Amino acid sequence: GFGKVDYAREKRTGYPEVIFGQGKAPEHVRVIFGKLVEKHGRAMVTRADPSMAEAVWESVPEAEFDPMARLIMIGGGERRFPGVVAVVSAGTADVPVAEEAARTAEWMGSEVDRIYDVGVAGIDRLLAQRERLQRASVVIVVAGMEGALSSVVGGLVRRPVIAVPTSVGYGAHFAGLTPLLSMLTSCAAGVTVVNIDNGFGAAYAASILQQAILEGAGRER
Amino acid sequence: GFGKVDYAREKRTGYPEVIFGQGKAPEHVRVIFGKLVEKHGRAMVTRADPSMAEAVWESVPEAEFDPMARLIMIGGGERRFPGVVAVVSAGTADVPVAEEAARTAEWMGSEVDRIYDVGVAGIDRLLAQRERLQRASVVIVVAGMEGALSSVVGGLVRRPVIAVPTSVGYGAHFAGLTPLLSMLTSCAAGVTVVNIDNGFGAAYAASILQQAILEGAGRER
Amino acid sequence: GFGKVDYAREKRTGYPEVIFGQGKAPEHVRVIFGKLVEKHGRAMVTRADPSMAEAVWESVPEAEFDPMARLIMIGGGERRFPGVVAVVSAGTADVPVAEEAARTAEWMGSEVDRIYDVGVAGIDRLLAQRERLQRASVVIVVAGMEGALSSVVGGLVRRPVIAVPTSVGYGAHFAGLTPLLSMLTSCAAGVTVVNIDNGFGAAYAASILQQAILEGAGRER
Amino acid sequence: GFGKVDYAREKRTGYPEVIFGQGKAPEHVRVIFGKLVEKHGRAMVTRADPSMAEAVWESVPEAEFDPMARLIMIGGGERRFPGVVAVVSAGTADVPVAEEAARTAEWMGSEVDRIYDVGVAGIDRLLAQRERLQRASVVIVVAGMEGALSSVVGGLVRRPVIAVPTSVGYGAHFAGLTPLLSMLTSCAAGVTVVNIDNGFGAAYAASILQQAILEGAGRER
Amino acid sequence: GFGKVDYAREKRTGYPEVIFGQGKAPEHVRVIFGKLVEKHGRAMVTRADPSMAEAVWESVPEAEFDPMARLIMIGGGERRFPGVVAVVSAGTADVPVAEEAARTAEWMGSEVDRIYDVGVAGIDRLLAQRERLQRASVVIVVAGMEGALSSVVGGLVRRPVIAVPTSVGYGAHFAGLTPLLSMLTSCAAGVTVVNIDNGFGAAYAASILQQAILEGAGRER
Amino acid sequence: GFGKVDYAREKRTGYPEVIFGQGKAPEHVRVIFGKLVEKHGRAMVTRADPSMAEAVWESVPEAEFDPMARLIMIGGGERRFPGVVAVVSAGTADVPVAEEAARTAEWMGSEVDRIYDVGVAGIDRLLAQRERLQRASVVIVVAGMEGALSSVVGGLVRRPVIAVPTSVGYGAHFAGLTPLLSMLTSCAAGVTVVNIDNGFGAAYAASILQQAILEGAGRER
Amino acid sequence: GFGKVDYAREKRTGYPEVIFGQGKAPEHVRVIFGKLVEKHGRAMVTRADPSMAEAVWESVPEAEFDPMARLIMIGGGERRFPGVVAVVSAGTADVPVAEEAARTAEWMGSEVDRIYDVGVAGIDRLLAQRERLQRASVVIVVAGMEGALSSVVGGLVRRPVIAVPTSVGYGAHFAGLTPLLSMLTSCAAGVTVVNIDNGFGAAYAASILQQAILEGAGRER
Amino acid sequence: GFGKVDYAREKRTGYPEVIFGQGKAPEHVRVIFGKLVEKHGRAMVTRADPSMAEAVWESVPEAEFDPMARLIMIGGGERRFPGVVAVVSAGTADVPVAEEAARTAEWMGSEVDRIYDVGVAGIDRLLAQRERLQRASVVIVVAGMEGALSSVVGGLVRRPVIAVPTSVGYGAHFAGLTPLLSMLTSCAAGVTVVNIDNGFGAAYAASILQQAILEGAGRER
Ligand SMILES: Nc1ncnc2c1ncn2[C@@H]1O[C@H](COP(=O)(O)O)[C@@H](O)[C@H]1O
Ligand SMILES: Nc1ncnc2c1ncn2[C@@H]1O[C@H](COP(=O)(O)O)[C@@H](O)[C@H]1O
Ligand SMILES: Nc1ncnc2c1ncn2[C@@H]1O[C@H](COP(=O)(O)O)[C@@H](O)[C@H]1O
Ligand SMILES: Nc1ncnc2c1ncn2[C@@H]1O[C@H](COP(=O)(O)O)[C@@H](O)[C@H]1O
Ligand SMILES: [Mg+2]
Ligand SMILES: [Mg+2]
Ligand SMILES: [Mg+2]
Ligand SMILES: [Mg+2]
Ligand SMILES: [Mg+2]
Ligand SMILES: [Mg+2]
Ligand SMILES: [Mg+2]
Ligand SMILES: [Mg+2]
Repeated sequence: GFGKVDYAREKRTGYPEVIFGQGKAPEHVRVIFGKLVEKHGRAMVTRADPSMAEAVWESVPEAEFDPMARLIMIGGGERRFPGVVAVVSAGTADVPVAEEAARTAEWMGSEVDRIYDVGVAGIDRLLAQRERLQRASVVIVVAGMEGALSSVVGGLVRRPVIAVPTSVGYGAHFAGLTPLLSMLTSCAAGVTVVNIDNGFGAAYAASILQQAILEGAGRER
Repeated sequence: GFGKVDYAREKRTGYPEVIFGQGKAPEHVRVIFGKLVEKHGRAMVTRADPSMAEAVWESVPEAEFDPMARLIMIGGGERRFPGVVAVVSAGTADVPVAEEAARTAEWMGSEVDRIYDVGVAGIDRLLAQRERLQRASVVIVVAGMEGALSSVVGGLVRRPVIAVPTSVGYGAHFAGLTPLLSMLTSCAAGVTVVNIDNGFGAAYAASILQQAILEGAGRER
Repeated sequence: GFGKVDYAREKRTGYPEVIFGQGKAPEHVRVIFGKLVEKHGRAMVTRADPSMAEAVWESVPEAEFDPMARLIMIGGGERRFPGVVAVVSAGTADVPVAEEAARTAEWMGSEVDRIYDVGVAGIDRLLAQRERLQRASVVIVVAGMEGALSSVVGGLVRRPVIAVPTSVGYGAHFAGLTPLLSMLTSCAAGVTVVNIDNGFGAAYAASILQQAILEGAGRER
Repeated sequence: GFGKVDYAREKRTGYPEVIFGQGKAPEHVRVIFGKLVEKHGRAMVTRADPSMAEAVWESVPEAEFDPMARLIMIGGGERRFPGVVAVVSAGTADVPVAEEAARTAEWMGSEVDRIYDVGVAGIDRLLAQRERLQRASVVIVVAGMEGALSSVVGGLVRRPVIAVPTSVGYGAHFAGLTPLLSMLTSCAAGVTVVNIDNGFGAAYAASILQQAILEGAGRER
Repeated sequence: GFGKVDYAREKRTGYPEVIFGQGKAPEHVRVIFGKLVEKHGRAMVTRADPSMAEAVWESVPEAEFDPMARLIMIGGGERRFPGVVAVVSAGTADVPVAEEAARTAEWMGSEVDRIYDVGVAGIDRLLAQRERLQRASVVIVVAGMEGALSSVVGGLVRRPVIAVPTSVGYGAHFAGLTPLLSMLTSCAAGVTVVNIDNGFGAAYAASILQQAILEGAGRER
Repeated sequence: GFGKVDYAREKRTGYPEVIFGQGKAPEHVRVIFGKLVEKHGRAMVTRADPSMAEAVWESVPEAEFDPMARLIMIGGGERRFPGVVAVVSAGTADVPVAEEAARTAEWMGSEVDRIYDVGVAGIDRLLAQRERLQRASVVIVVAGMEGALSSVVGGLVRRPVIAVPTSVGYGAHFAGLTPLLSMLTSCAAGVTVVNIDNGFGAAYAASILQQAILEGAGRER
Repeated sequence: GFGKVDYAREKRTGYPEVIFGQGKAPEHVRVIFGKLVEKHGRAMVTRADPSMAEAVWESVPEAEFDPMARLIMIGGGERRFPGVVAVVSAGTADVPVAEEAARTAEWMGSEVDRIYDVGVAGIDRLLAQRERLQRASVVIVVAGMEGALSSVVGGLVRRPVIAVPTSVGYGAHFAGLTPLLSMLTSCAAGVTVVNIDNGFGAAYAASILQQAILEGAGRER
Repeated sequence: GFGKVDYAREKRTGYPEVIFGQGKAPEHVRVIFGKLVEKHGRAMVTRADPSMAEAVWESVPEAEFDPMARLIMIGGGERRFPGVVAVVSAGTADVPVAEEAARTAEWMGSEVDRIYDVGVAGIDRLLAQRERLQRASVVIVVAGMEGALSSVVGGLVRRPVIAVPTSVGYGAHFAGLTPLLSMLTSCAAGVTVVNIDNGFGAAYAASILQQAILEGAGRER
């Protein structure tokens, strides 16, 4: 067949393989989704489009499709982890990527606090949210344009900050290259970065971090 | 004067400001280092060279200088955090950056497990270390050339993986751009990335994550 | 006319000129295809679309069109070479390029062993195929995302490895640039690389290598 | 000879031609400097090195050389313009470029307010200077790393903001390309940008703006 | 909700927040536009398309839509500032960006003098406008292709010059990257630059500069 | 210690690990070289400099150092393979990289035919060598400037062609990027490419191909 | 109005301004075309599409439209110059750009010799045309892929060679960037280069060169 | 040996091969230079340094070395061609490249008119030379920074214009990339371009053009 599902991944990492929808035939998505649900009782497709949702619904009618976040999901979402993942976005146009992060984190077992449209051009909006930011166990910062938000947030909290550059912008923005480079060279220490528009990856990293906390990582030594 | 030390940073983030040595006059480094030691009892300079160490020793003779890691340090290093930070490197030439990460993590209060020279061209070397990798609370992967190591490690562990591309390579490697892009587009979910050769940043992110575990982040809710 | 067919190429290289379909008018493709069939009894078009197939079928109704591999073919395919070309792909989305390679190799006279969906994030899937990999006379590795697969395969076999980066990915992937650079800077010695999505070129190189084996290249000295 | 001095520039623009030192022979710098002093009574060399200063002193011993700002100057500096140019820098390592801007502005006739080392990772340091920023007629923001400072400042003031990216950074910073792109795609409206490390150009633009204010630009209509 | 309007921006900068239309849902644009009009009595959307205009007209039927400039506007436009903003364009194809600048400047309170199609390949056309150029308080230069116009204009006037590279061109033009870089490295001192096609940003900078003149910036000292 | 030698590589691939000298301390090179000689009876260092040779000679005085090819070698070089590897270079300045390829191939067991300085600007020089080219089992083409040579050679032979771009050139050559891209987009089918200046990698691929011929790859099926 | 036609250009350069169609409204094209015809009796539009031709035909029904070359023309074409412009193309897919060059040269007054589909992978095809190449007064080389053709041609003739890279290719070809860089770093001396796909510009340069010959440039001294 | 001199080049192109000095051993330069002098009575080395000159003088003491133009020459320079090559430079720092062009042209048989330091920021300086420009048979424009000069010159003359971008600049200039792209996208028709700092190539193209005029290219038809 066209694919070998990595069934052992859940055992190794705590989560089943997630389907990368982009460029796959809807029929392929349907088949792999079905196999994963059968094996693990849960599954997710990222970068999904409506035709994939249609296909999946043929086999798994109770699957949920979020068109803004471009996710097809089933069987996660029951909260498991202590603490909160804050998802912070710079502008309104970054919300789809922020929602990809937020919905993924929820599916993985995290509670999410959404703090949207607090870009640095109006810095007081961000500072007004200082406490919510400081309460989070981990902060995801989603920003397009020049991506400055992650540097400011990185200097405000004592928790890990994961930055997601978005493709929102034009001209010298180069479809997200500029905030990507900007976040990588942040003057705030300890900000880590994922690929452009990769809300999924940021949430995965955040939740696996909460999994580490829950499992008391390293306490055993 | 030439600088305003951000004394409040320790309160906000848990750590004092760290001095970025590159491009600073040794005399400036000496003065800022002195102020930080006075205020916080500990200080660190990254990207330090011998002339900076000489200058610092004039005021703080007990400061330590690690020429391979290019760090000047004082006053951290007493272990505080539970668990272990694994620092994994692909080749021998990546060791200076790996050491920057390892020494920084130690200074910040982490125990470090060094797993060096396990690049993917001899995959069995890496697989022989599977258990040590799985025991860590967080894994830092340091790799130059094509940076493939972080994808393999990312698929083996249920803990956060932080990838550090290095400038070790030539030609189409573009001084680290290639492993940087490679790590950002990793097929393993949840790998987050820091700047080229930024061992310091990776360790900072790893230790702050352990700080989150120690402080039981989110348990209070 | 619009084109000078290089009829002498088969004599010089062992294979007739292959038509590069992209950007050509269907009518032009039809005419050149006809001339090649007449002269050599076989012909192939790469990067073909359905309109080109329609045009070709007007003159050569028995030509085959593979829409996934984007190939129009006639008159090759009877096996000639000893040994096997392994075509290995990282993900399901890389299959179209892998099929371009596999079908081309078959047309040129090679037997093909398809090993698909064995990307490095689930390394055990790949290692389970170690023997099939080692049995091949030459291995073609097709991978998008970060292209790490070719480095792992390169360290496992004592045969030539030809890497094909694909345009499968997004953001910092830059339509295949990232796996291209990654494969070029591979830490495994002796991996050679072809253009992004160039399954045809990889197969051509693999088959010509088998031609060298068949013809006992160099034995004559 | 090797050069045609543009004597008419002062008449057209308000300022004599300024010598771009980089790549010129010290002897050439000396000759052109001499001609400019003779004609206009004032002159400036940017990107000057000590050997150029030595050469200039042979003819014009009272010329001043500022090695940090890399400027050789004579005959400007008597204050002419109302208002203040604020020169704001993100880090200590950006000070040489900030000084190039500050000294140039002073030479051109402006009063300068230096606000250094107020990068966004410690945002409170910047906010503590809000009033000084708001008092300026024009603000020059000098920042390396990710260049986020100009977006925050741009949202705080009702005066023109001119951003200067610096080459301070490493890795994905690409010698200033990252803050350059970042400043160009700033989410704060109306920030304009000059070349990397071009403190001179920013100051020139700031002073010519003050010249416009002094001369009551447009009032005549 | 999906957005936090920065109502305090007018107080801080003199102008209300302007809506960046690109990538926003028409319904979102309608809601934010409505809020801004209610609060400030004026509002503007940049990079607007007809569907956004339709949505806005539902709530604010008297809003104006300029399809060439891609602006939706209401409530600015009554002239406030002394002096003139000259908007100079190199070619006919640059006119949409030039109009974005011109209409924005008018909305912000400036009088505009349009000097179009005076590219440097026919230098006498530009020189014939020397006087109009010299009369302006600030000059905006809009140019695609190689962007040479800003260097010539920069050497002709004693007023600030703001350069806008456009995406008009092909091949080695890279959608505006070439004139962007060209304008940043201009041999004329004091030219400042905004993002590719950012007529809005140039006009904002020009008008805020006139605001500085009107308010007699710095005279108070 | 600082390194884990991959002793099993010879068993898996036919050749022991080769030491990548660049960036390694001479002392490290000496130790690893010693271990490899002890285990395998042969060893090689690439990108070696004189200080590394000095270090190696302390332990292994009979090792050979080729300063032009930047190789330290011992224990290979007794011919084993049938056929000939042709190493073709475009210009005199490409010879060091060509020699890295030639000496590596010889060390690995191949006979080498050197055809140097036959760049395409004087095409008759190349055509005069047509027979020698056609006699080779595999052809390595080493070229800087625009790298056109591999396309011409690729169309002349019925054997695999491996292209090595070199860093010989200036300006728009970007230290080898231009011939690299040029070779990857070659209009001759089946040319495969290695990294800039990677004569070692090309020779490795060529020799492993001869190993496949010698071992009658695939005949066993 | 929207444009200032540069009527004086014919006097200065020998040719009227040529309209750059891309991005212009058909109505604008019609008006400018009309003005040029009225003034000079001839006119041309490059990068024209059918809607522009329709518009032009309303005013000037006898204008010719060549959809492959994307040119609208009137009033040139009567041969004026001695000698021949050879237009050489590498592949069939490059013919549209070659025709843009050929038709432009004819409109400007040159005789054209078309030598198409002689790419270097089948070098004998090119060498078979050696005489025609050597007979030309100037040679235009049009090539996509790796652009190697101009280096081979440049070494064969004693006349100027103008190279036109085309956007024909994929992957590492980057829409023509690769042959552009390749042609600029050609190992054949004296090849000059124009923008990607700029057949018009190459022909213009070729014809102006023939104009120089016709007018006996420099003989007057 | 290390090189095959292309003795036939003079017959094919009118000029002997020219030695590209960069990266060659002085001894190699000496030998090739000697062979060329023996065969053709004239020879030239470009990008030569003093150590090469020393080596050449051992065999050919009467050779001339121009350290600014980095040329070693003998046996050309007696004027042969009608007309004049104008070499125009934008700034004083571009003079070394301009001299490489001027000296090469003289060696090839052209008379040269040097028009230096006429950059567009002081446009009147250039316009004052209009007549000299118009008298030339061909114009070479040498410019760094943004390279705007070639567009202005291209619109002023009825003769071929060859543009040479230089590496003079900094920051967003990227060592000459910016003027290179700028010249390629010039709004003046018919400007052709050579590699960054390639004064030699521009002069070669200019002189071969004069050779075409002298030989009455095309008159024979
Ligand atoms: N065309 C434009 N280019 C750049 N920035 C803009 C543009 N239009 C609006 N903005 C800025 O975008 C911000 C609003 O973004 P948003 O919250 O996404 O509507 C405001 O700060 C504006 O100053
Ligand atoms: N010049 C070279 N270019 C690319 N790879 C190399 C080169 N020399 C050695 N290698 C590879 O580098 C690896 C050894 O790296 P290290 O452990 O750092 O010595 C081996 O797998 C070699 O095959
Ligand atoms: N295809 C083309 N490529 C480059 N420049 C062109 C092209 N067609 C016309 N031009 C130039 O564009 C200018 C006219 O631009 P415009 O005023 O926008 O029509 C003239 O100077 C022409 O020489
Ligand atoms: N400065 C230069 N830039 C570009 N090509 C050059 C230069 N100098 C010489 N050449 C060319 O380089 C070739 C000689 O290369 P080589 O055999 O390495 O000496 C000849 O074809 C020359 O035309
Ligand atoms: Mg907003
Ligand atoms: Mg190793
Ligand atoms: Mg899969
Ligand atoms: Mg600081
Ligand atoms: Mg025009
Ligand atoms: Mg040579
Ligand atoms: Mg063809
Ligand atoms: Mg000058």
